[in-house]
Amino acid sequence: MSGGRPGWARDDRLARAAWTRLAEPGDLVAGAAVHVMGACEALAAVVAGRPLPAEVLEVLDDGSTPRRLETAAERWRSRVPQLAPERDVSTVERFGGRLVVPTDGEWPQRLDDLQVGAPLALWVLGPLDLAATVARSLSVVGSRASSAYGEHVAGDLAAGVAERGLTVVSGGAFGIDAAAHRGALAAFGTTVAVLACGVDRFYPRAHEGLLRRVAAEGLVVAEVPPGSMPMRARFLQRNRLIAALTPGTVVVEAAWRSGALSTAASAAGLGRALGAVPGPVTSATSAGCHRVLRDFAATCVTDAAEAVELVEPVGEVLPDEPVTAGADHDGLSAVDVRVLDALPVRRGAGVDSLAAVAGLSRRDVEGALARLHLLGLAESGGGSVERLWRRLRPAPPPRMEVVGPRTEPRRAVR
Amino acid sequence: MSGGRPGWARDDRLARAAWTRLAEPGDLVAGAAVHVMGACEALAAVVAGRPLPAEVLEVLDDGSTPRRLETAAERWRSRVPQLAPERDVSTVERFGGRLVVPTDGEWPQRLDDLQVGAPLALWVLGPLDLAATVARSLSVVGSRASSAYGEHVAGDLAAGVAERGLTVVSGGAFGIDAAAHRGALAAFGTTVAVLACGVDRFYPRAHEGLLRRVAAEGLVVAEVPPGSMPMRARFLQRNRLIAALTPGTVVVEAAWRSGALSTAASAAGLGRALGAVPGPVTSATSAGCHRVLRDFAATCVTDAAEAVELVEPVGEVLPDEPVTAGADHDGLSAVDVRVLDALPVRRGAGVDSLAAVAGLSRRDVEGALARLHLLGLAESGGGSVERLWRRLRPAPPPRMEVVGPRTEPRRAVR
Repeated sequence: MSGGRPGWARDDRLARAAWTRLAEPGDLVAGAAVHVMGACEALAAVVAGRPLPAEVLEVLDDGSTPRRLETAAERWRSRVPQLAPERDVSTVERFGGRLVVPTDGEWPQRLDDLQVGAPLALWVLGPLDLAATVARSLSVVGSRASSAYGEHVAGDLAAGVAERGLTVVSGGAFGIDAAAHRGALAAFGTTVAVLACGVDRFYPRAHEGLLRRVAAEGLVVAEVPPGSMPMRARFLQRNRLIAALTPGTVVVEAAWRSGALSTAASAAGLGRALGAVPGPVTSATSAGCHRVLRDFAATCVTDAAEAVELVEPVGEVLPDEPVTAGADHDGLSAVDVRVLDALPVRRGAGVDSLAAVAGLSRRDVEGALARLHLLGLAESGGGSVERLWRRLRPAPPPRMEVVGPRTEPRRAVR
Repeated sequence: MSGGRPGWARDDRLARAAWTRLAEPGDLVAGAAVHVMGACEALAAVVAGRPLPAEVLEVLDDGSTPRRLETAAERWRSRVPQLAPERDVSTVERFGGRLVVPTDGEWPQRLDDLQVGAPLALWVLGPLDLAATVARSLSVVGSRASSAYGEHVAGDLAAGVAERGLTVVSGGAFGIDAAAHRGALAAFGTTVAVLACGVDRFYPRAHEGLLRRVAAEGLVVAEVPPGSMPMRARFLQRNRLIAALTPGTVVVEAAWRSGALSTAASAAGLGRALGAVPGPVTSATSAGCHRVLRDFAATCVTDAAEAVELVEPVGEVLPDEPVTAGADHDGLSAVDVRVLDALPVRRGAGVDSLAAVAGLSRRDVEGALARLHLLGLAESGGGSVERLWRRLRPAPPPRMEVVGPRTEPRRAVR
């Protein structure tokens, strides 16, 4: 330390690391104070017990009184004795991690959308560049109390999203989150877990193996410093971070009061694309998804292609129609279909009768019959007075015979 | 017949009855011709082989050439030999039915939205006034090939809609339609079946009992005259009629290529409210509903209340939250929740420690502890240096004792 002043008083990075310990995620007063004074100056004021300048209130711009600044400073001061940002940085570095601050190249610009509520710094574990990793990404979130249906869909969806080159971001929790991370990993894709606790804690403990794998192949991110416990308020703030890091969020399965709805609300509030996977209306574990579809006018998402389309619209390209058994009217004109429907199956009918039944002119009927005959859908026979037509069922497609590979006749070499 | 001229040449009602036989439902040229010339004149021109006036093209206003008028007239002429509107009217009257034309009081004004595609007349069976019956109504439609899930939801939804005083309109088909009619009837509500065949045919035949009951208690409606067979084109036109008769349509279950999607498309095209009931994304029988949610930006509907809300918005009234087990943080302020989360369950913690963990000032923590103590969520014990606090699980609610009715002490009478 030079001149006896602690490192955080001179170093913006260390001051921001300290702020992640003093202030809870999403503390708007902290964000405004750092915005106005800089991280070092704001921190020095708190530690010295000096009042924050009125300009902080102007930045907040929400009608707060000076009392709010005092209350905030009191809150922060209760944690001043714990301040040890150098130790926090070296703890995370020992885990192979790092502190990422807004001036770093890998800081995701999308977080600016959170304004004074943006994180002051992030603690990151993993081999990838954070900004590049979330550039093309999608959040896939949902209930911890998930059904087999929800986990199946989440895994499939995440795998398909990852196969299309997008990073799957989720919260590392039980249920849908875990299925999403696993789906992305299974597809050899990239996945990011955003935790509500320190990146050294791997909470929930049963997910230590999963989160270690995410940290080894993707990224584990937290706003709170190492050693921090997950708490209810932190889960909510973590959810806003998931929504802010990606251009779109898909809620796969959520009950009426699931925390995943807070991620959806944040995504909607930030103007991010928002999708929800529907489920049976008789299933309580899908009620939250249907609520998101209704209350946030979210897009109904049924597969990975539709999920990706949320954030990367395909323009004029239409999704493939699922393959269905071809009906015998496929590709026919409306007139031909009307004649086909008018054709009797057993006894034949004459052109006049068909015209009357179909409500078409004689000429239209004759043209249609010629086409239907060519397609093997109609046949005619001589009646006593006029030619009679009846409907034919289309022949099944010819069975493929098993044949060997087509080979050229052998030629003698040389 | 006076002066040897047939009835339809003088009587608008009979002429319209005749037009329902000459022209297929939704025939825009017929609609335009009747609009320009009146039903009697237009019919006389067709029967006499006279060309339609150019004004008909102006009404169509879609760039059609005079050739289109000739083709249409040729189509209609093929059915002139079948014209017998008086007989059609008496046939339907024998069934207890009637012809309804636009000048009748029970003609639903909503059909005007179809413009020249509006029905020229309707054939109606049943004891109710058509316009009054569909004034407050909802179409509930879906696939014939439905699942047990879809039929269950359709029946519940229709019953709930009927209980709220709305008429349930559907197509009388197998599957979702039948479940909707039955649900409405089971709730002693009103239901209307719109058929693609004559009202005397009760197609499909397996639904004869159901359709007779609908005709006895509600209404059976068709655009085609008695004796007409259902044909593919007529199903599509029937679907547009279902959409036009009601202020809103809900698709309960539909495969990717279900005919119910044409009802949805008509409803959307007419600016009607449109809802769809979601289902598992793994179920082919719900793929059409999800398509409607995506392609038509339909509203996600999960129960009867939400279905009714489509057409009768409730303003600021929010739907009841489903009853869930109360969490122990219900009704607490954000600060109290943070302190509750910071409280250890086993060993106690002091106020300073709690303030640091929760990121709150001492005063905030003390206030919160007092409230949590009152609520039975926290208890304190003397530590060696300071008072220590720990978390208490809330006590279960007291069991209700079975007691007899409260009675006043008997008083002697007199």
